[in-house]
Amino acid sequence: LAFPLLWVNGHRVEPTLPHLSPLDRGFTLADGLFETMRAYRGVIFRLDQHLERLAAGARALGITLPSWLAASVPEAMRIAHDAGSSEASVRLTVSRGIGGTGVIPPAPVPDDAGPTVVLAIQAVPAFPEAIYARGLAARIASGRRNERGLASGIKALAYTEAIMAMAEARAAGADEAIWLDTEEHVAEATSSNLFFLTEDTLVTPPVTCGVLPGITRRAVMELAPSLGLAVSERIVERAELFGAREAFLTSSLREIAPLVRVDGRAIGAGTVGPVTRRIMQGYAALTHRECAP
Amino acid sequence: LAFPLLWVNGHRVEPTLPHLSPLDRGFTLADGLFETMRAYRGVIFRLDQHLERLAAGARALGITLPSWLAASVPEAMRIAHDAGSSEASVRLTVSRGIGGTGVIPPAPVPDDAGPTVVLAIQAVPAFPEAIYARGLAARIASGRRNERGLASGIKALAYTEAIMAMAEARAAGADEAIWLDTEEHVAEATSSNLFFLTEDTLVTPPVTCGVLPGITRRAVMELAPSLGLAVSERIVERAELFGAREAFLTSSLREIAPLVRVDGRAIGAGTVGPVTRRIMQGYAALTHRECAP
Repeated sequence: LAFPLLWVNGHRVEPTLPHLSPLDRGFTLADGLFETMRAYRGVIFRLDQHLERLAAGARALGITLPSWLAASVPEAMRIAHDAGSSEASVRLTVSRGIGGTGVIPPAPVPDDAGPTVVLAIQAVPAFPEAIYARGLAARIASGRRNERGLASGIKALAYTEAIMAMAEARAAGADEAIWLDTEEHVAEATSSNLFFLTEDTLVTPPVTCGVLPGITRRAVMELAPSLGLAVSERIVERAELFGAREAFLTSSLREIAPLVRVDGRAIGAGTVGPVTRRIMQGYAALTHRECAP
Repeated sequence: LAFPLLWVNGHRVEPTLPHLSPLDRGFTLADGLFETMRAYRGVIFRLDQHLERLAAGARALGITLPSWLAASVPEAMRIAHDAGSSEASVRLTVSRGIGGTGVIPPAPVPDDAGPTVVLAIQAVPAFPEAIYARGLAARIASGRRNERGLASGIKALAYTEAIMAMAEARAAGADEAIWLDTEEHVAEATSSNLFFLTEDTLVTPPVTCGVLPGITRRAVMELAPSLGLAVSERIVERAELFGAREAFLTSSLREIAPLVRVDGRAIGAGTVGPVTRRIMQGYAALTHRECAP
């Protein structure tokens, strides 16, 4: 394990040491939220959008974000940049903090330590070259994504099912799992959004299908018209995905990852398609433009 | 906050100090499981069944439980008993341990620290007397429970939605939330199972409705015949619950908690019913009998 640069509650700490209480509700009950961001040339891509999504989740959970939080992230990123981590993965985790293990959070008290904030900055994970060269093979998860769950659309810590879906897919020889929602509509992958191409339209499922409103997803939707593509956010049946010309997954760290097989069937030609390549290039140009040092 | 007696990875530790890495996957991704148990007179009620359920969850998540774990729990309980905590809440938490923040767990390595095991023993929470004297008022949660989720039926750390459902219920003046599954069948409360009485049959929803196989639930199902009650584990429509003669919730800490109102409507007479009282007495006698010092 390569240890990240680490901040806990705004203080830089030694990453190999313990810093959290075993009574932290993030640990005992997934009572919290996170954001995974990507820094290019020392600048976090669309930090404001990540912080907005975090704030929306905090409102939904009734967690009051510390006032210093927003400013602390670019400040930490400057330190990481000076330490040589300019191309980086930036993980921000906020839990409700130390408290009882019951589902009712303890009432806040004046000397309360408040939420726990962890910021970890580290090298971008080395994704296998195959992700971008030959494309990903995915498998439809056996379990369903709950589009009517109370935490649907917020990036809560509750990723147990994503871990299980990924394990199931890998055990079957695939690289990723794709979730259908409880009405059998296509939703997303374990930690990426899904797009596919039909004629000259990029299609992606709506957030009402249990999809996280991804920051990269939004960037791709904004980018598409400039590449001559229409975008349609709509309900998708599994058969439509199988019949697509091309498909790809989006996330902050993976960026644009071509998807070429689902449940053993080729999507289009079964290779990384020309439109996917244009999106990959367009997204690289966008991040380069917005993340000027 | 009253601090518990605390063990981390089998070692007794000071509960006010930090002991966990911010990179623990229990904290970053809810990559783990827990059990909440109840000790009477220094003896944990049905520890073997809790450990069996934990082991089943660990197999589902691909977490290898340490060989010393099972014996460490009664050993810690003896220490708590000697320290005066004989009537206690016993919370056992197991996460996959320190690792990356991606959904794919890092491959185990020989010098890996392995899973993180936290055992916390503390006083039983003081439930409001009203829970047992006047009964609980519940509200149907606006979100749905996912009976087809991959973690359905295992006690994973992902309790974010339970916290949200409870907060929603309390904001509406109720004591608890009751979940329907995605097919609108009655499932369970945020951390309790649900029973209701129709004629002389106790009815409880099956695990296929997204219900956790509760240890107290099982004890009540075993107890019922000796009290002259039939038990039926079957799919339940919301209207049936509204039309029940009596209802109650079960959990290790709450034991048998009468449920007298749902969405503002009285269940039966709207007071704690005679059958519920018999179950409460029968369960108290059972725990007293099994947990002999």
